[in-house]
Amino acid sequence: MPDGSAVFITPEALLTHWQGHRRLTRRMIEAFPEDQLFGFTVGGMRPFGELAMEMNSMAEPMVQGTATGEWNLSFDREPRPKAEILRRWDESTAKLNELWPQIPAERFSETMTAFGQYEGVVHDLILYVIDNEIHHRGQGYVYLRALGIEPPPFYERQ
Amino acid sequence: MPDGSAVFITPEALLTHWQGHRRLTRRMIEAFPEDQLFGFTVGGMRPFGELAMEMNSMAEPMVQGTATGEWNLSFDREPRPKAEILRRWDESTAKLNELWPQIPAERFSETMTAFGQYEGVVHDLILYVIDNEIHHRGQGYVYLRALGIEPPPFYERQ
Repeated sequence: MPDGSAVFITPEALLTHWQGHRRLTRRMIEAFPEDQLFGFTVGGMRPFGELAMEMNSMAEPMVQGTATGEWNLSFDREPRPKAEILRRWDESTAKLNELWPQIPAERFSETMTAFGQYEGVVHDLILYVIDNEIHHRGQGYVYLRALGIEPPPFYERQ
Repeated sequence: MPDGSAVFITPEALLTHWQGHRRLTRRMIEAFPEDQLFGFTVGGMRPFGELAMEMNSMAEPMVQGTATGEWNLSFDREPRPKAEILRRWDESTAKLNELWPQIPAERFSETMTAFGQYEGVVHDLILYVIDNEIHHRGQGYVYLRALGIEPPPFYERQ
C-alpha cells in the first residue's frame, strides 16, 4: 500500500530547491545582451525574453493562487527592458518566500484547478511551473552558446 | 519551526512524475533522425545522443546507488544506434520501478555521497538527475526545431 505520509521532500526543502533554480535563471537573464533578449531565436522558437516573461507570469501567480485561491490571469509577455524583467523577478522571489509558508502542507496533495483551467494535484501543478522554467532555461543555454556567450554553470545554484 | 514530516510530495508520486518526464524524453530520442542523433549540434554543444547517453548513465545508477549503496561509475557516452539507446532507456525505466520502492522513505532526507564524489541530501541529488534530464531535453527541443522537426508537446506525459 502506498504511504501517503511518506516524505520525498518537504515543502520547505522544495522552496529552497526552487529558489536555487531561480538564482540560476536570473543569471541567465542577466547574461543575455539587452538587444538579443527579445531579438534572438533559433529554429523559429520564442526569444528568451518572452520565455522569462512567461516564467514571471507563472511562478508567483501559481503560488499566490495555491495560497489564496486568487488567480492572476494577466499573461503580459510584451518586450521589456532587461532591468524591468529582473526587477519583477526579484519581487516574485520575495513574494514566493512570503506566500509559501502560508500554504497548509496538506494542500500540496489536494486537487485544484489552477488559473481557472488546469486541473491537477497541487504538487504536480507547482512542479510543472518549475519544470517549465528548467525546460525554457535549457533552451536559453543553446541561444547563448549560439551567440558565442558562455552560460552560467548549470550546477551552480547559490 | 520547519516541520520535517510535512509532505510536499511522496516518494511514490515523485516516481510517477519522473516516469512522465521519461516518457516525454523517450519520444524526443525517437523524434531525432538517426544520422543527426550524434551528428547535429548548435553553438558547439554536445549532440542530443550524447546527452541521452548521459541521462542513461545517471538515472538508474543514481537510484541503484541510493537503494543499494553500489555505484556504477561507467560513464559510457559513445555513439550508439538509436534502437540501442531506446532499449537501454526502457531497461532503466523498468529498473527504476523495481528499485524505487526498496528505498526506505527516511533515506530521502539523509545526506549521502553519490558516485563517490557528489555529497548532498538524497532528495536534492535525485532532483538533480531529473532536472538535468529536463534541462538537456530543452536543449534537444532547439536542435529538433533547428532541424525543422516539430518536437513532442512538453505538457504531454502519458
